[in-house]
Amino acid sequence: MKELTRTEVAEFLRNRDHYCILTHRRPDGDTLGSAAALCRILRAIGKQADILENPEITEKYRSLHEGLTCTACPENATVVSVDVATEKLLNPDFAALLPRIALLIDHHGTNSHFAPEGIVDAGSAACGELIYDILVELGVQMDKSTAEALYTAITADTGCFRYSNTTAHTLRTGAACLEAGADTYRINKALFETNRMSRLKMEAYLAQHLEFFADGTIALALIPLEAEHECGVGEDDMESISNFARNVEGVQLAVTFRTDKTGATKLSVRSAPGYDASSVCAALGGGGHVAAAGARVECDQAQAREKILEILSKQGYL
Amino acid sequence: MKELTRTEVAEFLRNRDHYCILTHRRPDGDTLGSAAALCRILRAIGKQADILENPEITEKYRSLHEGLTCTACPENATVVSVDVATEKLLNPDFAALLPRIALLIDHHGTNSHFAPEGIVDAGSAACGELIYDILVELGVQMDKSTAEALYTAITADTGCFRYSNTTAHTLRTGAACLEAGADTYRINKALFETNRMSRLKMEAYLAQHLEFFADGTIALALIPLEAEHECGVGEDDMESISNFARNVEGVQLAVTFRTDKTGATKLSVRSAPGYDASSVCAALGGGGHVAAAGARVECDQAQAREKILEILSKQGYL
Repeated sequence: MKELTRTEVAEFLRNRDHYCILTHRRPDGDTLGSAAALCRILRAIGKQADILENPEITEKYRSLHEGLTCTACPENATVVSVDVATEKLLNPDFAALLPRIALLIDHHGTNSHFAPEGIVDAGSAACGELIYDILVELGVQMDKSTAEALYTAITADTGCFRYSNTTAHTLRTGAACLEAGADTYRINKALFETNRMSRLKMEAYLAQHLEFFADGTIALALIPLEAEHECGVGEDDMESISNFARNVEGVQLAVTFRTDKTGATKLSVRSAPGYDASSVCAALGGGGHVAAAGARVECDQAQAREKILEILSKQGYL
Repeated sequence: MKELTRTEVAEFLRNRDHYCILTHRRPDGDTLGSAAALCRILRAIGKQADILENPEITEKYRSLHEGLTCTACPENATVVSVDVATEKLLNPDFAALLPRIALLIDHHGTNSHFAPEGIVDAGSAACGELIYDILVELGVQMDKSTAEALYTAITADTGCFRYSNTTAHTLRTGAACLEAGADTYRINKALFETNRMSRLKMEAYLAQHLEFFADGTIALALIPLEAEHECGVGEDDMESISNFARNVEGVQLAVTFRTDKTGATKLSVRSAPGYDASSVCAALGGGGHVAAAGARVECDQAQAREKILEILSKQGYL
């Protein structure tokens, strides 16, 4: 893939007339917000542009794409993907378009470079932050809708500026969106201050069933399938559930247990500095980062719990 | 009170040599962070400056004031208060110093102007945002500690840029703190991603006991004293507890019931646009804003619940 600069991306976009934008599977605020903003920017400079309708878009984000989508990729359109790290993250319905993707815009350092040209800026906290830079390069004035799309993208990928990926540039991009009229309070309320009862019931279950060891520095959170059913949670509700135990005061390392379709146990380990989640998971054939790792073991949760306690003990945490 | 501009405040601070800084009762991140930053700024321009030790400072914030405090206000020091809206918010131990407060720096529109000179900027989301402007006026370079104090102040008062008081200037001030080396991830983790078990148990109780009416648009959260005792919560744990019911998906108006020391019921009403919390509370002799209001009724929670249902019905919400 030919890696383009922001200026070259702007030039690319100026040089063609008709665009179709692709988002990734299980679409989040960043891919959807980035696509909406890019579509509006392209239309603002007189191009024909649409987003290929993502069948997995959720209610929370639906309004972002209103009036911007097409149901099939026009034959003569230049195809651009946003926030798509690898071709595997394309919706199966979009997979046939892979050879047609002419430009990719992304911020994942692990991007698989599946297009002939593209920009991958791992320094951008969100793909939306990079889209903002391209907007500036193109000299486009941000309108309210574009500002709200970019703000959604940026806050979704930074937990509203809380995660460690947030830079001064991220905050300044947020400021620019606010100045351009984004109703940031409404967006934050919808993204961060609205909880489904099913999720709250799952958190209630966890609060009542967490197990603590080593003076409360180690926490185990077993989530039996029956508990998931009783709380009525779907996969959406379980997003970041492994942070629940990790965020309890005093906890330095937390292990969350879930059962997958095959009956095996999936472990998520989260840890604070000084505790190594990846070495705990490596002992079970899993892997990941020092602060966040995972493993899958072919046994039920009770057996997986015994294994984890043994490993934690061997590694000196208990 | 003579209202000063930022430039005049900078001049005031340049013109004296010895300062003692006061914070408010039940101190939060804004008053404590603002005091720490102001103290460091004054020391950076060669002044003698200390913060009068606040006996109510909590563990979470203690490190902010390390090496910056005095246990008694020096006789020749100029006394400055930060983030103190009225003299009633001074610690009783500090009350004798009231006539000595020469300058107040605050951002509450309701400030009672208890000093001869001061600056009150209600447009600043946090007092710390105003302290940053004063730092710029004084031409002081922000060091890491000052940046972390200001970042703490700003994020504490904006829920990390989530509340509606956040402006583009707030976000840009956050960006400046990050650029000056503030470990914003650590601060955000401590302020927003760390939960006490007692609070989590209280939330679990609520998740299991919320009552819904009118297709889930109205929620009632009764919190009997026994539940508070069982969960082991203190007043700190109950901060913003009235948002819990309000933040459930679909809820437009939420009423939270607590019992005070006298056995009376305290009601907190929170509402979304289109629903009027203040008129509900007014019907019980209480008051507040459209989105957040309160009332106190001389009866137990079961009776208060009946009254509220009657009012909600009369006002067309049920």
